[in-house]
Amino acid sequence: MTAQHAGPSGAPVELPVVAAGREPLTTTLSEQDGAVVRRTVLPSGARVLTEAMPGQRSATVGCWVGVGSRDEDRGHFGSTHFLEHLLFKGTERRDAMDIATAFDAVGGEANAATGKEHTTYYARVLDADLPMAIDVVTDMVTSAVLDEDDFTSEREVILEELAMNDDDPADVAHEKFAELVLGAHPLGRPIGGTPDTIRAVGRGDVWEHYRAHYRPSTLVFTAAGGLDHDEVVDLVQAELSRAAGDLGEAAPAPRRTGGTPSGGLERGQALVVERSTEQAHVLIGMTGITATDERRFQLSVLNAVLGGGMSSRLFQEVREKRGLAYSVYSFNANYADSGYVGLYAGCSPAKAGQVADLMLAELVKLAQDGLDSEELQRGIGQLAGGLVLGLEDSGSRMNRLGKSELVHGQFLDVDGVLQRVRSVTAEEVRTLAGELLSRPRSVAVVGPFSDDTPFTGVLQ
Amino acid sequence: MTAQHAGPSGAPVELPVVAAGREPLTTTLSEQDGAVVRRTVLPSGARVLTEAMPGQRSATVGCWVGVGSRDEDRGHFGSTHFLEHLLFKGTERRDAMDIATAFDAVGGEANAATGKEHTTYYARVLDADLPMAIDVVTDMVTSAVLDEDDFTSEREVILEELAMNDDDPADVAHEKFAELVLGAHPLGRPIGGTPDTIRAVGRGDVWEHYRAHYRPSTLVFTAAGGLDHDEVVDLVQAELSRAAGDLGEAAPAPRRTGGTPSGGLERGQALVVERSTEQAHVLIGMTGITATDERRFQLSVLNAVLGGGMSSRLFQEVREKRGLAYSVYSFNANYADSGYVGLYAGCSPAKAGQVADLMLAELVKLAQDGLDSEELQRGIGQLAGGLVLGLEDSGSRMNRLGKSELVHGQFLDVDGVLQRVRSVTAEEVRTLAGELLSRPRSVAVVGPFSDDTPFTGVLQ
Repeated sequence: MTAQHAGPSGAPVELPVVAAGREPLTTTLSEQDGAVVRRTVLPSGARVLTEAMPGQRSATVGCWVGVGSRDEDRGHFGSTHFLEHLLFKGTERRDAMDIATAFDAVGGEANAATGKEHTTYYARVLDADLPMAIDVVTDMVTSAVLDEDDFTSEREVILEELAMNDDDPADVAHEKFAELVLGAHPLGRPIGGTPDTIRAVGRGDVWEHYRAHYRPSTLVFTAAGGLDHDEVVDLVQAELSRAAGDLGEAAPAPRRTGGTPSGGLERGQALVVERSTEQAHVLIGMTGITATDERRFQLSVLNAVLGGGMSSRLFQEVREKRGLAYSVYSFNANYADSGYVGLYAGCSPAKAGQVADLMLAELVKLAQDGLDSEELQRGIGQLAGGLVLGLEDSGSRMNRLGKSELVHGQFLDVDGVLQRVRSVTAEEVRTLAGELLSRPRSVAVVGPFSDDTPFTGVLQ
Repeated sequence: MTAQHAGPSGAPVELPVVAAGREPLTTTLSEQDGAVVRRTVLPSGARVLTEAMPGQRSATVGCWVGVGSRDEDRGHFGSTHFLEHLLFKGTERRDAMDIATAFDAVGGEANAATGKEHTTYYARVLDADLPMAIDVVTDMVTSAVLDEDDFTSEREVILEELAMNDDDPADVAHEKFAELVLGAHPLGRPIGGTPDTIRAVGRGDVWEHYRAHYRPSTLVFTAAGGLDHDEVVDLVQAELSRAAGDLGEAAPAPRRTGGTPSGGLERGQALVVERSTEQAHVLIGMTGITATDERRFQLSVLNAVLGGGMSSRLFQEVREKRGLAYSVYSFNANYADSGYVGLYAGCSPAKAGQVADLMLAELVKLAQDGLDSEELQRGIGQLAGGLVLGLEDSGSRMNRLGKSELVHGQFLDVDGVLQRVRSVTAEEVRTLAGELLSRPRSVAVVGPFSDDTPFTGVLQ
């Protein structure tokens, strides 16, 4: 293997999407506090990124595919999520019970997540069981059979999953909010599709989706925990070969490019879903920034200060001082070419209009008056501490590697992230709050309302 | 300090509830894989149990009080949970913002949980911030002021929390299930009370509850992670002294005793909560075993095999083979003198009766035909692997210490738990399934049903 070495700690390391050639191409991305991050591009175009965490007895492995619900064509909405379910139903070598048994027998956890821009299959196991986990996950992503009977039965399971989500009013409010703020952008669609689109998707559609998007060159394996990089690479290579024989040589699939931020409305809209719930679920927001926008560190600090913890403005003003909500927070989602920022509260329907006004007022105050150095430092400290605490979990390190490869195209070690978070200024946060407020502003509400009258005051 | 030493690995170590006298009484409970578990009884009767995990950069500390919703008198239902909220509202030295800021500024997580038999206040922080966490948590449990205005405002927050839970049909089904199976037993009541009882509780009631139950002799501090036992003990001792001056000498408060299993119905009942939901939430079950029952390891294996994972009977029969549910599992709760075992599925209302029958049939099959050695070993492997994986989390180790002290009255190290799990036999599991089936069997359902007709077939 060819080995290259990383630059100084804190500097981003680029992750070029180039063919390895005949031999695997391995790079060391970071060595920090005993943890070593390495990346290998295999001749087939498959990529393997690992973080060896010394002393850890467990490991988490994930296989990522850079395809999500935004990539579906009309008529196939929900097929990415449908496929995710079907990969657990059986391969040429294993039926559903074999897959389930493999992980259950060792007390491991296996699951998958379909997002708007990527899909991940992952498992957490004791380090000694990592070869098994890599075997099973690779088998699933390369050799699923999508049996017709399984397809029919799993469709019912997915319809139950959609029904379950539909019974959760906060979940409904969040989905409607994304649809509303992003307008006609494919990122606005719900990940799982709708009962109608799920009933309409055929086995052939999902099979086509599978064959088109799951090839060695699209697969990114990431693992963290008690592991050895070379062993993981060899295991992935062996399992890919077992599935496909001669893999040939190929460049990794191109990364989704960011480009110009897009999506969003010309003017804000209000959407009310009438439900006879005890609580109203109120979401206010607007388009945000992309995942590669340099201001993402500023947005993290803004979010921490505005609605990220018990000391945040929303929590203090809405819950602590006035007792108007149990759950109140702000959030953001950043994608390749769009994103959104939102404020949420679950509150008494009679006070929902007041709560909406109060939440918006906090964002306005942040944009107008900014924040003092104590509040800024608290927001920074919250992110920094949370980041370091998160590193004890091999799952969050595994996720970080996947996002570095698929979303950012570069790896930033913990020092690098900390440096960027700590360099955020109060003025940057204030300016960003102002920019968010300049955008069309929408409101989505689920609750016992026949119209949007209580909420039109927050629109723009 | 007096130091005693533990017996051989795998043997339970008793945790006697006796006065320390003038000097703290310290015992080493376990030394395994570098992790050291120690217990100190302070002269005031406060207890401190820690597990030092070498190499860990974080620590979780909890303060436990052996009081839960079952201990409330009529007219005060929900006051334990109300108090839990109020401790975050301020002490003689700190207001709510100070408490929130202390943890947010370092990226820590602080929270609390009220159970039916105990209440826990806990925080996870970087190891360097552990002294701060112990200071704040101890301040909250010893010196809360329960300000009248805060009381009034927090009542509204709790009413919102109850409303939020009421909007979650699965949550409603679980609460109704416990009420139904445990009959008039105080353990059957919902932890948070009801809107009516919360409106009825006065500040004086909660204050009385606080003064009666939160004294040094009732407090159990447990901590796990990157820590030093003696330092934790000194910190706890110093903070308790700061709050109360001379603490005097006292024996630790007596542990809640198990006694004879009680509670439950003479015959099973059906309860339907009519809601216009997409899914039906179906729970079938009966009384189970107590928390100190030696058969708890058998029940764990039974639960793993019946409905604990993707390879379990319920998951395979209801979801994989028939596509009837997305979420289907079994569960159990074990308390000092009662407990329950339940089977749950969220499914289409039209198929809810069929799903109830199918779930019950799996328990019947287990009782009649037992399980083969492969299935037994899989259930054991699942528990054993899950136990070891869980040990990487300082929060789960902190919890284990609290339950050892308050519930079991003895500490069983990981080897001890593994030995007991591995010694469970197929015949024991079959016999226990049979015993569960011999008990009155109830069903609780939330969904669009006007009566219990579809479900009476599973009653006994």
